[in-house]
Amino acid sequence: MSQHENANLNMLSRDNAVVLLVDHQVGLISGVRDIPLGDLKHNVVALAKAARTLGVPVIVTATMPDGMWGPTMPELTAALPGVQVISRTVINAWEDPNVRAAIEQTGRKQIIVAGVSLEICASFPALSAKAAGYDTRVVLDASGTFNEAKRTAGLQRLLGAGIPVTDYATAAVEMLRSNVDPSAGEVYSDMDMPFATLVWQIQSGFTKT
Amino acid sequence: MSQHENANLNMLSRDNAVVLLVDHQVGLISGVRDIPLGDLKHNVVALAKAARTLGVPVIVTATMPDGMWGPTMPELTAALPGVQVISRTVINAWEDPNVRAAIEQTGRKQIIVAGVSLEICASFPALSAKAAGYDTRVVLDASGTFNEAKRTAGLQRLLGAGIPVTDYATAAVEMLRSNVDPSAGEVYSDMDMPFATLVWQIQSGFTKT
Amino acid sequence: MSQHENANLNMLSRDNAVVLLVDHQVGLISGVRDIPLGDLKHNVVALAKAARTLGVPVIVTATMPDGMWGPTMPELTAALPGVQVISRTVINAWEDPNVRAAIEQTGRKQIIVAGVSLEICASFPALSAKAAGYDTRVVLDASGTFNEAKRTAGLQRLLGAGIPVTDYATAAVEMLRSNVDPSAGEVYSDMDMPFATLVWQIQSGFTKT
Amino acid sequence: MSQHENANLNMLSRDNAVVLLVDHQVGLISGVRDIPLGDLKHNVVALAKAARTLGVPVIVTATMPDGMWGPTMPELTAALPGVQVISRTVINAWEDPNVRAAIEQTGRKQIIVAGVSLEICASFPALSAKAAGYDTRVVLDASGTFNEAKRTAGLQRLLGAGIPVTDYATAAVEMLRSNVDPSAGEVYSDMDMPFATLVWQIQSGFTKT
Amino acid sequence: MSQHENANLNMLSRDNAVVLLVDHQVGLISGVRDIPLGDLKHNVVALAKAARTLGVPVIVTATMPDGMWGPTMPELTAALPGVQVISRTVINAWEDPNVRAAIEQTGRKQIIVAGVSLEICASFPALSAKAAGYDTRVVLDASGTFNEAKRTAGLQRLLGAGIPVTDYATAAVEMLRSNVDPSAGEVYSDMDMPFATLVWQIQSGFTKT
Amino acid sequence: MSQHENANLNMLSRDNAVVLLVDHQVGLISGVRDIPLGDLKHNVVALAKAARTLGVPVIVTATMPDGMWGPTMPELTAALPGVQVISRTVINAWEDPNVRAAIEQTGRKQIIVAGVSLEICASFPALSAKAAGYDTRVVLDASGTFNEAKRTAGLQRLLGAGIPVTDYATAAVEMLRSNVDPSAGEVYSDMDMPFATLVWQIQSGFTKT
Amino acid sequence: MSQHENANLNMLSRDNAVVLLVDHQVGLISGVRDIPLGDLKHNVVALAKAARTLGVPVIVTATMPDGMWGPTMPELTAALPGVQVISRTVINAWEDPNVRAAIEQTGRKQIIVAGVSLEICASFPALSAKAAGYDTRVVLDASGTFNEAKRTAGLQRLLGAGIPVTDYATAAVEMLRSNVDPSAGEVYSDMDMPFATLVWQIQSGFTKT
Amino acid sequence: MSQHENANLNMLSRDNAVVLLVDHQVGLISGVRDIPLGDLKHNVVALAKAARTLGVPVIVTATMPDGMWGPTMPELTAALPGVQVISRTVINAWEDPNVRAAIEQTGRKQIIVAGVSLEICASFPALSAKAAGYDTRVVLDASGTFNEAKRTAGLQRLLGAGIPVTDYATAAVEMLRSNVDPSAGEVYSDMDMPFATLVWQIQSGFTKT
Repeated sequence: MSQHENANLNMLSRDNAVVLLVDHQVGLISGVRDIPLGDLKHNVVALAKAARTLGVPVIVTATMPDGMWGPTMPELTAALPGVQVISRTVINAWEDPNVRAAIEQTGRKQIIVAGVSLEICASFPALSAKAAGYDTRVVLDASGTFNEAKRTAGLQRLLGAGIPVTDYATAAVEMLRSNVDPSAGEVYSDMDMPFATLVWQIQSGFTKT
Repeated sequence: MSQHENANLNMLSRDNAVVLLVDHQVGLISGVRDIPLGDLKHNVVALAKAARTLGVPVIVTATMPDGMWGPTMPELTAALPGVQVISRTVINAWEDPNVRAAIEQTGRKQIIVAGVSLEICASFPALSAKAAGYDTRVVLDASGTFNEAKRTAGLQRLLGAGIPVTDYATAAVEMLRSNVDPSAGEVYSDMDMPFATLVWQIQSGFTKT
Repeated sequence: MSQHENANLNMLSRDNAVVLLVDHQVGLISGVRDIPLGDLKHNVVALAKAARTLGVPVIVTATMPDGMWGPTMPELTAALPGVQVISRTVINAWEDPNVRAAIEQTGRKQIIVAGVSLEICASFPALSAKAAGYDTRVVLDASGTFNEAKRTAGLQRLLGAGIPVTDYATAAVEMLRSNVDPSAGEVYSDMDMPFATLVWQIQSGFTKT
Repeated sequence: MSQHENANLNMLSRDNAVVLLVDHQVGLISGVRDIPLGDLKHNVVALAKAARTLGVPVIVTATMPDGMWGPTMPELTAALPGVQVISRTVINAWEDPNVRAAIEQTGRKQIIVAGVSLEICASFPALSAKAAGYDTRVVLDASGTFNEAKRTAGLQRLLGAGIPVTDYATAAVEMLRSNVDPSAGEVYSDMDMPFATLVWQIQSGFTKT
Repeated sequence: MSQHENANLNMLSRDNAVVLLVDHQVGLISGVRDIPLGDLKHNVVALAKAARTLGVPVIVTATMPDGMWGPTMPELTAALPGVQVISRTVINAWEDPNVRAAIEQTGRKQIIVAGVSLEICASFPALSAKAAGYDTRVVLDASGTFNEAKRTAGLQRLLGAGIPVTDYATAAVEMLRSNVDPSAGEVYSDMDMPFATLVWQIQSGFTKT
Repeated sequence: MSQHENANLNMLSRDNAVVLLVDHQVGLISGVRDIPLGDLKHNVVALAKAARTLGVPVIVTATMPDGMWGPTMPELTAALPGVQVISRTVINAWEDPNVRAAIEQTGRKQIIVAGVSLEICASFPALSAKAAGYDTRVVLDASGTFNEAKRTAGLQRLLGAGIPVTDYATAAVEMLRSNVDPSAGEVYSDMDMPFATLVWQIQSGFTKT
Repeated sequence: MSQHENANLNMLSRDNAVVLLVDHQVGLISGVRDIPLGDLKHNVVALAKAARTLGVPVIVTATMPDGMWGPTMPELTAALPGVQVISRTVINAWEDPNVRAAIEQTGRKQIIVAGVSLEICASFPALSAKAAGYDTRVVLDASGTFNEAKRTAGLQRLLGAGIPVTDYATAAVEMLRSNVDPSAGEVYSDMDMPFATLVWQIQSGFTKT
Repeated sequence: MSQHENANLNMLSRDNAVVLLVDHQVGLISGVRDIPLGDLKHNVVALAKAARTLGVPVIVTATMPDGMWGPTMPELTAALPGVQVISRTVINAWEDPNVRAAIEQTGRKQIIVAGVSLEICASFPALSAKAAGYDTRVVLDASGTFNEAKRTAGLQRLLGAGIPVTDYATAAVEMLRSNVDPSAGEVYSDMDMPFATLVWQIQSGFTKT
C-alpha cells in the first residue's frame, strides 16, 4: 500500500501500524469531561484488544505512575498481559528515548495514538512523530480531556497538522479490511459495540421464533 | 416508616418494595434515543441485581415476546435466574391479571417501575397502581424512550401525578440505608458506578505507593 | 373508568375523548422553531387519523383562515374528509360558541388538544375547559411554538394547572389499550413511527433469510 | 371572570392586571446570560408598550439607580413617558412601601412581574404578593438571570409556588382576547414578533404579484 | 414572618435558618459532572461564608471521611474554622443522631441543604426533615451529581415534594433582605459573583477617567 | 467544466457524476444516532430519485445483506427499480471489484458517496477513490453514524483529505444548475424539502384569497 | 496591501472589496433555522449599511423574486436606496452575466458574500469566483440555512476551499482599520451591536452620577 | 528546534516565544458570551503568570483604555507588575508601531496571542504576524467573543490560515517540556487547574489515613 502525501488518504495496515497509549492514568482520567469515563475505559481497552488480535504491537507509557497521577488504569494493564508500562518524566512521549526506541524497534511507520489528555499527551507525540516522517493519527474516543476548549483546540491543531483523527472501531476495521478475514469474529468481539450486540440479539430473537 | 400523603417524601424500604420491569425487549430498545443503549442495559441489570441482593422481588413482563418487539434483553434474564417473563397483550401492565397477581402476591406497597418506553410501558402501570393506592415510582435511567418530546411529556405527567422519578442507584441506596449494612459491599458492587470504581482505583494506587 | 381528582392519573378512553386541533395554519407553522416542521405535520396528521380509526371525534378550528395566517395545512384537511374547519376571531378557542358547541355536542369529557402555538392556541382552551370541569390534555409533539421561552412557559403553566402533557402516540395507544384490539393494526399504521417501521423491516429481513 | 384556586387556570384581564418591572438596570443586564440581551430589551419594551395600549398600568422600580447597577435601561424609560422609576433599597420590591402603594393604588389583583434577575428581583415580589392574596405571574422572556442554575432554581420555585410563568406575547394576547378588538392592530405592532412580520412580508410579496 | 403551607412562598430568615452541608468530600466531588468542579467549590464556600456573616449556623457532615470518599474538601473546612465535621455511616444524614441533634440544638426551623450528590446526600435529609415539619430547601449550585438523569430525577422529586430549590446567592440575599443592611458589603464580598466584580471594575474604570 | 486542484472548488456536473450508496442496511440503520432515522431514509431516497431524474447513475452496495446487518432498506430499493444491490465482503467498497467495475463502467469521474456509517462505509471508498484520482464527495445527511465521536472523526478526516462534504439537496441543485431547467420541477419534487412545501402552501393560500 | 496565497491571511480593504447579497428573499428566510430570523435580518442590514458608509459597493440579487420565494426582504432594500435587485434564474449567482458584470464593473477583487442559503446561494458564487481568481469570503451571520447538516457541510466545504468565513462586524472593522478613522462613529452605529450599546449606556449612567 | 513549514507541527519554546495579550478590557469582557467570564479572567492570568515563570516576555495592549471599553482588567495588570499597557487606536495590534516594536525587540519568532474578541483582537495580529513570517498561535480559552457565529468564524479562519489554536495550559506545558524541570512546580501552581488540585487533595486525603 503506497503512502500518500496527504495522510488522511492512507489506510491503516496491520502490517505497518503500532498503537501508542499515553497516560491513561487514574488521576488524569478523573479529570476527563468530554467523554463518560466508562466509555473512555471501554474504548481504550477495546482498541488494545483488537490491536492484539490483529497482531499490531501496543506500547503503553505513563507519567511518573508512582506520583500524583497514579498508575495506568488497571483494566488496560489487565488487557495487555506482558506489556511493560514505560515510565517517563518528559511531557511529550516522543522525546522519551525508551518510548521512541520501543516504536522504532517495531519498524512500523503508522502510529495510532490515544492519550489523556487529547491535546497534550496524545497530540504532542503525534505531532512530533509526524514531523519525523511517520504517518500518525489520534484515536478520539480512546482519548479524553478536561474541558471543551481543550478539545476544540486539540482537534483543530491535529486537523491543521494533517494528522487524521479516528475512532477506535474505525481504526480496527480499517486494519481488518474484510468481514471474512479469519480474525473478523474476534475483532468484532474485541470492539464490543453496543448497537451491534443489540442487532445480533434482535436477529437471534427473531430467528428463534 | 409511616407513609406520607405526598409520596415524594416517602423513603423506599426493602421490606415494602417490589421492582417491576416492563418491556425491556430488544426490538423496543433499538428505538431508544434518550439514553445510550449500553447505559440503559447496564442500569436495568444493576437495578435488578441490587434489588435481589436486598431481598426485593423483581417482576418482569413483556409485550408478546414472540412478536415484533422480540424477547426481553438477554442480559436481564441472565441476571434474574428463575424469574419468568410474564407475557401480555394489554399495553398497560397493570391491566394484566398475571402481572397484578404477581405484585399483589408480594404484599408490598411500593412499586419501583422501569420500562421501555418511559411514558407508556413504565408510566401507565405506575399511574394505575398509584390510582389504586400504591406508592409507585419510575426509574428514569433504567427506562428509555424514542424522542425528546415523549421524554418531556412522560416526565411532566409523572410529576403532575405525584409519582417520584428516581434513578437506579438512588433507589438502591435508599433501600440500603446504611453504608455499614452487611449487604453494602454487594449492593455497591451490583450498582457498578464508573466514578466509584475510579475513586477506588485512585485510592488503591496511592496507598500502594 | 372513574375519574380521579388528579387528571394525570386518568387514562384516556376512546368512548369519552374528543380531539381539538387549533390553528395548524400554514402561516403560523412557518414560525414554529421547537420541532422540525415536517415532524409537526406528520404528528398532527397521525393523531387525527388514529383518532378517526378509534372512533374519536376530531374538531378543527382556525383563526380567520382567509387572513394573514392562511389556511389550515392541507395535509390535515386531506386526512379529515368531511370535517369543517371552524373559523373564529377570538384567540381562546374555548370562548368561541361554535367550537364549544361542537365539543358539547359530542357529550365527551376528555379533550385532547393540539395547536400552534402551544402556549396560546393549544393551552388557552385546555385551561378554560379544565376550569369548566373537563379533563383536558395537550399533545406536545402535535403542537409547536416560536421559541424556547414560550415552550418552557407553556409547559410549566400546564403542569401547574394539573393538565397532563402527552404525545400523539401515547394518546393513541392509551385509547387503544390492547395490542390485540381489532383496530390495533390500523392504529399502529396511522401512527407511522419510524423506529417501529425499521424493526418490522429488520424482522422481515431476518425471517426472509 | 371568576378567580380559580389554581392561578394557572386564571386568564389575565386588562381590567384587573398591572405590570411590575423590577431592576432592568444596565449594570445588572450586563450579567444576564440566559437570553441574548438584545432580545431581553426588545421583549420588556414590547411588554410595556402592549400593556399601555391595553390600558394596563406599568410600575417600574430600580435598586439604587445612582449606585453600582446603574439606571434603568433607557429604551424602557423612553417607552414609558411619564412613568417614574421608584428607587428602593430593599431587595424584595414587595417590601418597599412605595412599590406596594403604587400597586394597591391601582386596585388591581393580577400582577405581571418581570425583572433582572428572574429568581430574585422578579420572583421575590411575585412570591410575596401571591402570599398576600394576589394572582401573580412572571414573564420569562422579559426577565433574565446570570447562569443556568439560577434559572432552573427560579423556574422550579415559581412552579412549586403555583405562580404561572408566561412570556410577553402570551400575556399580551391573553388580555387582548380577540383579534378583532379595536386595539388588536396596535398590540400586534407593539409585540413586534419577527416571524409575524415575515409572514406579513410574504403575504404582501405574493399579493403584489 | 408567618409560615405558609406552601414552602415555596416562605422567605428565608437569618433568624430561623441553618445551613447543612453534606458530603462535600474530595472523592465524591471527583465524580460530579453537572457543574464544573471549580464552580461547585466556589459556591459552597461562598454559601458557608455568607451564612456565617449573617449569623446563620453551618453544620457539616461527611460519610466516613477516613474511607473511600476521602475528607471534606479543604477549602470548605478552611472557610469554617471551629466547625467539626460530623462523621456518619447512615446515608440519609437526617437519620444520624448527631446531625439531627446539631440541627435541633439551633432551634431553627428552616434548613438550607447542599450536598454531593444532589439527589441522595442533599435530598434525603431535605425530604426527611420536611416530613418532620421543617421548611427545607436545597441549594442547586452548591450541590452536584454524577450524570444528567440523576440531576433530573433529583430536581423533579424535590419539586414534587414541595421543597424549594434555590441557588447560593439567592439564599444569601433572601436572608440579607436589604442592600443597606450593615452586613451587605460583606455578604456581597462573600458571594463573590464574577459579573458583579466586573460591573464594579467597569464603574471604577469609568469614574477614574 | 475544468477540474481544480482543490476539489472543493469543483461544481458537480450531471454529465460527470455517479452516486454510490453504501450499506443503507436496516440493521446498521438501527444503530444510527446522529440523524433521526426517518430523516436519513427520506434523504437517501430523495438523493436517489433526484439523481435518476438528472440522468445520474446510482450504484448500491451492501455488506452481506443475507447476514447480520440485514437487507438494504426497502424504501431505497423501491425508489430504484432495476438497480441490483452489489453484495460484498470487504469493508471498503472501493476494494470490491464489482463496485469498482460498476463505477468505471460509467466513465464518470465525480463520485457522490453516502453510507452507513459515515466514517467507514461512506468515507473509506471516498478516500480510496480520491487517492485513485476521482473527485469524490460525501453526502452528510444521507449518511449516518453511531455516536458523536465517530461523526466528528469522520468529518475531520474528510476535511483533511480535501474531500467536500455536502448535503443531498445541495448536490442535486448543483447538478440542476438552473431553476428553469426542464427537469427543475421534478428535481424539487424529488428533494421534497419540508420548508419549500410550506412556502408553496402559504403562497397558494394567499393567492386563493 | 499585497495578496497572500492563503486568502485567510488577507485583510479586507475598503478600496478593493465589494459586497454581494444573494437571495435574502422572504420565502427562503422563512425556512432558515440556524439563526433567529430577527438576527439574520439585523445583520445583513448592518453589513449593507456599514459597507455603504465605507464606500464599498453592494450588489443584490434574487432568484425570480416574482416567484415562489418572494421578494428580497424589505428591510434590506430600504437600507439600500438606489440599488437594483438583479433577478436571475441560474442557481449559482456567479453564472449570471448581469451579476458578474456588476462585480467586474467595480474592478474590485475581494468579494464579501452573504446569502440564503449559506451552502448554496452564498457558497456557490464564493467558490466559483475563488476559482476565477478572486479573494472571496462568506459572512456567516448575514447568511442562513435550513438545518444543521446543511450548515456543517457548507462551512466545511468553504474551509476546504480556502475561503475565509467571517461575520458582519469583523468584515466591517477589518475595512475600517482604525478607531479614529473619520467614519468610525458611523460604522459602529451601522453595526448596532447590542453589547456595545449596553456598555455605552453603563458608561453614560456612571458618568452622569 | 527546527521550524516546520506547517506551524501546527512546531512545538513552542520558552526561548523563542512571546505572549501578546490584546484588549482584555473590562467593557469588552462584559460582552463575552462563549466562556464564563470568571474562567476567562482566570485563564489569561494563569497564562501570564506561567509565561513569566518560564522567562517568556508578556506584552499587553489595549484600545484607548481611557475610552468606552475601559481599562485592562485589574487582575491581569496585578499579575504583571512592571508591564506597561500599550495604548493604541488601530484595530489590528500588529499595525501599531509600538506593539510591533515591543515584539521585535524580544527577537523572538513565536507569538502566543490571546484577546477579546477572539476573531478580531486576537486573530488580526496573529494573521498579520503570520503573513510577516512569524509562527503565531491563538489561545482559545484566554480569549473570548460575543456570540457563536463570531467564534465559529474566527476558529475557521485561523484553521484555514495555518495558525494553531491552543489553550493556556497546553501552551505552558509545551514550553515547560519536562515534569522534572526546576520550574515545574511553579508552572503547575500558576496554571491552577481545578481537577489537578482535586487529585492532589484526594492523594493527600488517602495518604493521611
